[in-house]
Amino acid sequence: MGFWKNLFSGTDSNADQKSKFRSVPNYGGEILFSTDRDLDLYELEELCDSVGWSRRPIRKVRIAIEHSFIVVSMWHQKGQYKRLIGFARATSDHAFNATVWDVVVHPEFQSKGLGKELMGEVIYLLRREDISNISLFADGHVVTFYQQLGFSPDPEGIKGMFWYPSS
Amino acid sequence: MGFWKNLFSGTDSNADQKSKFRSVPNYGGEILFSTDRDLDLYELEELCDSVGWSRRPIRKVRIAIEHSFIVVSMWHQKGQYKRLIGFARATSDHAFNATVWDVVVHPEFQSKGLGKELMGEVIYLLRREDISNISLFADGHVVTFYQQLGFSPDPEGIKGMFWYPSS
Repeated sequence: MGFWKNLFSGTDSNADQKSKFRSVPNYGGEILFSTDRDLDLYELEELCDSVGWSRRPIRKVRIAIEHSFIVVSMWHQKGQYKRLIGFARATSDHAFNATVWDVVVHPEFQSKGLGKELMGEVIYLLRREDISNISLFADGHVVTFYQQLGFSPDPEGIKGMFWYPSS
Repeated sequence: MGFWKNLFSGTDSNADQKSKFRSVPNYGGEILFSTDRDLDLYELEELCDSVGWSRRPIRKVRIAIEHSFIVVSMWHQKGQYKRLIGFARATSDHAFNATVWDVVVHPEFQSKGLGKELMGEVIYLLRREDISNISLFADGHVVTFYQQLGFSPDPEGIKGMFWYPSS
């Protein structure tokens, strides 16, 4: 489970380092990772559209990104052309717990191990900030994917629960 | 599920209102709720000890409270004497998601409906801030408690997952 340790060797202590790019080898261009929050939110919306997520107000997406503990975007660069192909973010109390939200990889770039690398970067950054408890809520069809990354469903009988307003 | 709507009628829009006390009827003294973060962390540690939680560094607890979106403490007041008997906090992206952590009620005050009122206050505050997605991770023995409050385990097959470092 230590793949990101080999890929990334950053030493600074700020999880919110701007314009930090890390590159991993790829076929036809390069894959880059960034923690820069200054994203084009319409480009992000397009990425979320590509996997069929419901639209969310841009205003609220901006607030959510601003108040996330870490934000990781993944880019495909070919010559001068750079395209947003993945995204993930995590909320946190900056001490014990972090919860990962909005993990997305563009369909054209799925099944190439890039989701694993994106999540590797998220875990790397959270561990670097000494966060011991990394959690997420996984749709049924991606439980196996997260298990391969070291996540356990319902460990020690702990249940993920969501509140719904009563009608 | 709208019990807090009856109990509380605050109208201000700031989830982090200081020294805000709400009172509910009780036998022998009064139960008070507060969103004030300026807690005696040793008193909080004592409360957590009373339910058998492992000790955590005070320094990190302070950071976690500081970076929580909301913090709710519950107090038993009898004359001049005020005692911390409950606590809960939530992390959030301030827009879509909030996750509730560290819900605790002192054993002497359990099974009196106070956990329900504490969580009612948490949900009330989060809803007031327009947070639509309230989640938590529940130990097996409190799943029924949270279900009674309107929380669903594994809704639509969504699994709560935790990451553990590989050895």
